[in-house]
Formats: sequence, structure tokens, C-alpha cells
Amino acid sequence: MKRIFVIGAGLSSPTLIKYLLDNSIEYNWKVIVGDISEESAQKRINGHPNGEAIAFDIYNEKQRTDEVKKSDIIISMLPARFHHFVAKECVKYAKHMVTASYVSEEIKELDNEAKDKGIILLNEIGVDPGIDHMSAKNIIDRINNADGKINSFISFTGGLVAPKYDNNPWNYKFTWNPRNVVLAGQGPAQYIHNGMYKYIPYYQLFKRLQRVYVLEYGEFEGYPNRDSLRYRTVYGLDDIPTMLRGTLRRPGFSQTWDVFVQLGVTDDTYTLEDSENMTYRDFINTFLRYEKDIPVESKLAKYLKINDDSMIMYKLRWLGIFERKKIGLKNATPAQILQHLLEQKWHFDEGDKDMIVMQHQFEYELNNKKSKIISSTIVEGKGNIHTAMSLTVGVPVAIATKLILTGKIKATGVHIPIIKEIYEPILYELEQYGIKFIEEKTELK
Amino acid sequence: MKRIFVIGAGLSSPTLIKYLLDNSIEYNWKVIVGDISEESAQKRINGHPNGEAIAFDIYNEKQRTDEVKKSDIIISMLPARFHHFVAKECVKYAKHMVTASYVSEEIKELDNEAKDKGIILLNEIGVDPGIDHMSAKNIIDRINNADGKINSFISFTGGLVAPKYDNNPWNYKFTWNPRNVVLAGQGPAQYIHNGMYKYIPYYQLFKRLQRVYVLEYGEFEGYPNRDSLRYRTVYGLDDIPTMLRGTLRRPGFSQTWDVFVQLGVTDDTYTLEDSENMTYRDFINTFLRYEKDIPVESKLAKYLKINDDSMIMYKLRWLGIFERKKIGLKNATPAQILQHLLEQKWHFDEGDKDMIVMQHQFEYELNNKKSKIISSTIVEGKGNIHTAMSLTVGVPVAIATKLILTGKIKATGVHIPIIKEIYEPILYELEQYGIKFIEEKTELK
Repeated sequence: MKRIFVIGAGLSSPTLIKYLLDNSIEYNWKVIVGDISEESAQKRINGHPNGEAIAFDIYNEKQRTDEVKKSDIIISMLPARFHHFVAKECVKYAKHMVTASYVSEEIKELDNEAKDKGIILLNEIGVDPGIDHMSAKNIIDRINNADGKINSFISFTGGLVAPKYDNNPWNYKFTWNPRNVVLAGQGPAQYIHNGMYKYIPYYQLFKRLQRVYVLEYGEFEGYPNRDSLRYRTVYGLDDIPTMLRGTLRRPGFSQTWDVFVQLGVTDDTYTLEDSENMTYRDFINTFLRYEKDIPVESKLAKYLKINDDSMIMYKLRWLGIFERKKIGLKNATPAQILQHLLEQKWHFDEGDKDMIVMQHQFEYELNNKKSKIISSTIVEGKGNIHTAMSLTVGVPVAIATKLILTGKIKATGVHIPIIKEIYEPILYELEQYGIKFIEEKTELK
Repeated sequence: MKRIFVIGAGLSSPTLIKYLLDNSIEYNWKVIVGDISEESAQKRINGHPNGEAIAFDIYNEKQRTDEVKKSDIIISMLPARFHHFVAKECVKYAKHMVTASYVSEEIKELDNEAKDKGIILLNEIGVDPGIDHMSAKNIIDRINNADGKINSFISFTGGLVAPKYDNNPWNYKFTWNPRNVVLAGQGPAQYIHNGMYKYIPYYQLFKRLQRVYVLEYGEFEGYPNRDSLRYRTVYGLDDIPTMLRGTLRRPGFSQTWDVFVQLGVTDDTYTLEDSENMTYRDFINTFLRYEKDIPVESKLAKYLKINDDSMIMYKLRWLGIFERKKIGLKNATPAQILQHLLEQKWHFDEGDKDMIVMQHQFEYELNNKKSKIISSTIVEGKGNIHTAMSLTVGVPVAIATKLILTGKIKATGVHIPIIKEIYEPILYELEQYGIKFIEEKTELK
């Protein structure tokens, strides 16, 4: 019986663990779930005969060593900064490891040792990073193998609420870590367009949008992510003239979000004096000029040159940022206060479903013909537990684990899923789970 | 014979050293100037019989100890991060020390020991910090002693070019560290206005201006400095409803500077790929959208909603930011490239003179009457060596040194010049040097 050790029973683990348990009888697996809270781990196992829940503390060195030694493969679903503790044990005791996080420098350094021990440390095998790599590299390799030349690769991903549950004026709910959403885009965005480097400061980001249409789901808007340049090397496209990766929102979101950026409300670098006793109205007012007898709404609209009757003001009023309601958070940063308010308004309700939207746009030349491929997928969640996020992170991790244990993936060392041996069988099986890319191809000119 | 050891013969030292040498015969002083470059130190001494120049390396521990031991007082004009090395030696060997920099935490910790040894570590005795503290505290103490209540304290300082030499469309030349000018204002500005905290993000700072009129020098504009709040405690005005400190420029400067901020050109956090071979035109273009066949000037004007025929575009063109001239700087950040260009255009020429402008605005209640005091000074430099900066930094440092050596300042421990014993005699003598505040008082309502 093979022993699979899953560390972390958080929001991204349910579908992963379900997949492993569902397959555990057929493949003769024992699935151990370790979490700082044994109760959380129990919930995931849900009494399955091949499952076992344990309390696990990543800081407990002895436990770390013991559990790794007993297992055949370790899946770390911890926050990214903890993976290398596990990775070191894995290399020491020649155990495979899988994570859905960006490969760190510490893990990269284990490459030779992992090869010597004949094991794989597979990273970035969730959704983003993960499915984005595999689906993109699949097309890139296909064009390259046919001696085509890729001139442009633009790729967008978004985590949003599914259309049926999309019932607030922002067309947005928190389907993932709210803090990351509030701080999104801080630090300049870097990409390349027709051979020209482009840099966008944070405070222009939400004005520099592209329209994106995805399958029958209609219109979205995309803003560039921080660093698109480094993906040129990741995908072996070092000389590509155009490369941009971005984030998707529904139309109109960014323009209103930009109000918070322009005010300074997303700043996380300092705390506000007496934030606890401030009202939301006071809070917004701190970012506006002192002007006697002029309402906060009017000051804001005038300051940022927004029409009083616009959708922007409507969305802001809907959030309650002008209300005389106490914040009640001590020593909070502006970003923390904004997050606190948004969590009440953008709450992902019981019964709501989320969705992951991804689209790659390639322009290339092949046999003197210019073409464009648009490859898109939308994955809707199945509810509050098996969200689209949990599904798209967990299923590829689970499939990779199975393929490693069954010897279908033979690669050793430190990897991300950009080689055919890894991405091909995983993409194939993802389709069975409804994670399927639709390609639309058009001739250019 | 008293031995005065001046460390650092840089741009802020000439007037200081001249003052000390001019007074050295009368007071029987030996003035030692130590600099990493002995030649620079020699230039300052200029053959004066009571002067001596030495090569001095702050990292040389033995030399540090030896020179401090031999001296009666040490004046550190080094960059602020080095002062505490000197301060520790001063406390050890019971020697006074004077600096023009913000007092650091490391130096604050030496307070008790300095008191025990009967010496003073006097900091923030240049212009800003320095003259600002003394001139403000002079008025604050006067109002407080008469049982008045201060409701508002707004204070602006600027280092600019004197009117006669103010001959470029920006009305600005570099009279001090260019890097600080390019990075000025990064990090949110914090102040309080009528009891309301106000926070301004960097990218709104140069839009949030106040008009300031100073004596017969006409109109200026002021933008808030980073942290005005902490000065409440410094000046003993913890409950003051309005407190703001800011920086002065000539009208129109900030609006055009804001173009650089909005583009992202003042960013110092990343380097541009291939900056060496870019032209300034390419450089500006990296911050604008890719749009075929539209000139960079038009893209910029449209992006930031600037009129093509405005003074803003004129000032930008005058700087040469649209020119097809190679930058020639390797791996440079945007801020470094901008600085490189500005240094060529805002050069402080041979024969130019600078000026320091300072204005305090107080509103207070006394005997049921509300009044306003505006206290202003403008100091013009005497040329390229004895600039207004060198004068306003050096003279108060020199006066303080004299008062300590002659026993007129008896305070011990770590100080900044906010007590009467220190600021009163210094302000008095500063007037002899033409650094004189003019007060304009008006009744309110």
C-alpha cells in the first residue's frame, strides 16, 4: 500500500483529497491528511477507510521527519514559505513531493540531489501557476514543432463568481484570499509589446485595460500582472516580441477599484491613528482635502473627476464607504480597513458558486501564414467546498500524484509542468474533470 | 587651545569651517578638518594658520578613537548613518558632539551616558532640521508662556534658485542632492487638519498644493512632507488640531513634476532592460501604451489629459525627454535615468546663487482674540561655495559649537534645539549673519 501524505487541509485541499480518496481503493493508497487542526483534517477524510487524519505541526522537526520517512509521496498545500522545510526532508529520504506553489530558490537548489535520489519535486501544478503553464506550453510546443514562429502571447486568468450568482453591482465576490485581492497589482507591471518594454506604475494599472471575450461567458476586462517578462524564459520564448499576462475582472470593476487606488485606500504600509473609533465616512474623508460643509461624496467626486450620477459612485455607495458606521479595527492599515468592509459586502454566500476563467491568445507565423489561436476555459465550482479554485488547484495536483506513483511521470529533479511528459497526460485527464480548453483559430490579414 | 574636529569637507561644510577659522584667533581654537580626501579638507582650510587638514576614514577605528580623544568637540558632517560611530567615541571620552542630522535611535540611547559624562550630543542644528525648529519653537514658547492656545501650525521650507538666476521654465535648479529631489515625497504624506487626520498617497501629492506668499519674493506652492504628525510631540503641541509641514517650489513646478510621477518615471525599485541603448524618447515611451504611428508626445498628452499647447508640455519638451538621444546609463532605474537628464538641464551654473525659503504660519487664541502670525525668512547664497544651503546649515552648527565651547550652552545629554537655552542665543547670532525671520501679525475675524 502506497502512503500519500497531504499537508494542509485548507480551502484549496478538499477536491484534491476527495480525488485521492476516491481513487485509493483502486490504486491501493493510504491517504494521510495532516493539519495544525486535526478537526479540519478529519472533515476532509470524512471517515473514509483509506484515509487518516493527524494533527501536524510543520515546526515540529521530529514529526516532519517521521511522517516523510513513512510516506511514498508528500503533497504540501501549506503556504509557499513552508515548502522547502518539507522538500529538504523529501530529498533526504528519497520521497517525491508535489506543490501548487511557485518554485522557490531554496527548492531549485535541491535539483541535483533530487536527481541523485531518483525523485521528483514537482511545483506549480495548481491552476495559476499550473493549468496556465500546461495549456500554454501544449500550444507553444505544437507551434514550435511545426516550425512556426510565435509573435505574441497574451494570457489572462481570473477567479470570479459564476454568472448565476453574480448579483452585486461590482460583479465580484471574494472566492479566494481577500488580502491578495486588496493588494493586487502593487509594484510596477512589466511586459513587452512589439519589442517595446512597457512599465506601468500601480496607480495607472487599473486604467490600462484590455477587453477580453471568453466563450459564451461574454465580456471581461484584463489588467497586466506584475512581471510578465520572466515568463519568456519559462516558456522558452526569449525573443518573443509581445508577452503579457494579466488578471480578469468583469467590465467596470477596475474603473471603480481605481478610486480606492487613487485615494490611497489600498496602502498597507502604515496604520491609521484611532482607526477603531473612525467611521467608514471618516476613513474616506482622511484621503480628501479638508473643506468645510462639503459632503464627503461631493469632495470625492470632484477630486477624482467622477460624475455624481455615474456607476462608479453607485458602486461606492453600495459598498457603504460613506456610512457613519464604526470600523472597530484597532491600529489598522488603510488596506486592512478596506478589506474588512469588502469582506462584508463581497461575501461568498452559502450556495454561491465561483468560476475560474483563463484565456491564452497566440499570434504566430507558420508556412508564411499568420494565424491567431484563442484557447479558453471556464471552470465553475460545485459549491462552497468544492469551489472552482479547489477543483482547479486540487485536480492537477492529484493527477500528478497518481502519475508519479504509477510511474507514468518518470522525470526526476525539480520541475514545473512545462515538459510534455508531465503536461500531456495531466491535460488529458483534466478534460475528464471538465477542465477543457476550447480553441478558436483565425487567419490574420 | 581648544581643538575642534570637523568630519567631512563636503558641500555643506564650507561656511561652517570658514566661521570656525574666522573666529579661531579670537577664541584660541585649533580647527582640524578630516575628510576621506585630504585635498578636499585642505581646500577648506586654505592655509589658515589655526587650521589643519587630515585624511580621515570613518571606518578606521583606531583613527576615530585617536582623533576624538585629542579633541574638545567633534562636528560630524558625514552622512547621517555614520554619526553614531562618532557619538559612541564622544561619550566614551567625554567630548561634545554637534550634527545637523536627524537624531537617530542609536544616538538617543546615549542620553544617560552623555549626561553622566557632562557632555552634549546636539543634533538637528542645521537648516531643516535646525533653523526650522528654533524659529518655530521661539514663537510657540512665546505664545504658550502668555497662556495662548495654538490651533494651527503650518510650515514650509524650500531650497530654490535665487530670483536673479531663476532663468529656466521650471523655475528650479539643483541646489542640493539631486537624488533626494527626484525621490521626494515617496511614501504617504500624513498630517492633521482641524482635528482630522489626512493621508495623501505619493501619486496625489503634487496635486494637493497650497499657495504660499513669502515677503517680497512673491508666490510659491507647497506640498506636504511625509510625516507632519510626529512634529506635534517634538514641539510639545500634542493636541494641536492642524499641523502640516511641507516643501516649497515655484508655481507650476508640481503640476509638471506630477507628469513624471503619473508615468512612473520616478520609480527607483527596478532597473530597465537595456537602458544603456535606449533614447530618452524610448524611455518615456515605455510608460505609454503601444499605439502604432502615434507620436510619443501625443500619446503622453492624451494619456494624462494634458493640453498639447500647455506650459506642461513646453516644460517637458524643454527638458528633452522626447529627444532621440541615447541615455548611456547601464542597468538604470527609471529614477536614475530621470535624474541623469535633469542634472544636465537643472544644473546649478558657475555664478548662480541659491536661496532657502522658510515660512511658519501660526493661528492661535490669546485673551479671547484670534490671531495669525506669519514668520518668514529668505536667505540667498553668496555663490557656488558659500551657498544658502552651506550658510544655513553651517552657521547654526558653528554658533552652537562656539556656545558649547564658551560654556553658554550648558545642557548635557542628547538634544535638538528646542529649548530656549539653545535656540535663543543661536537665533540672536543668526540675525547678524542675515538669517532673520520677519513676522507679520494679523487679527483673525
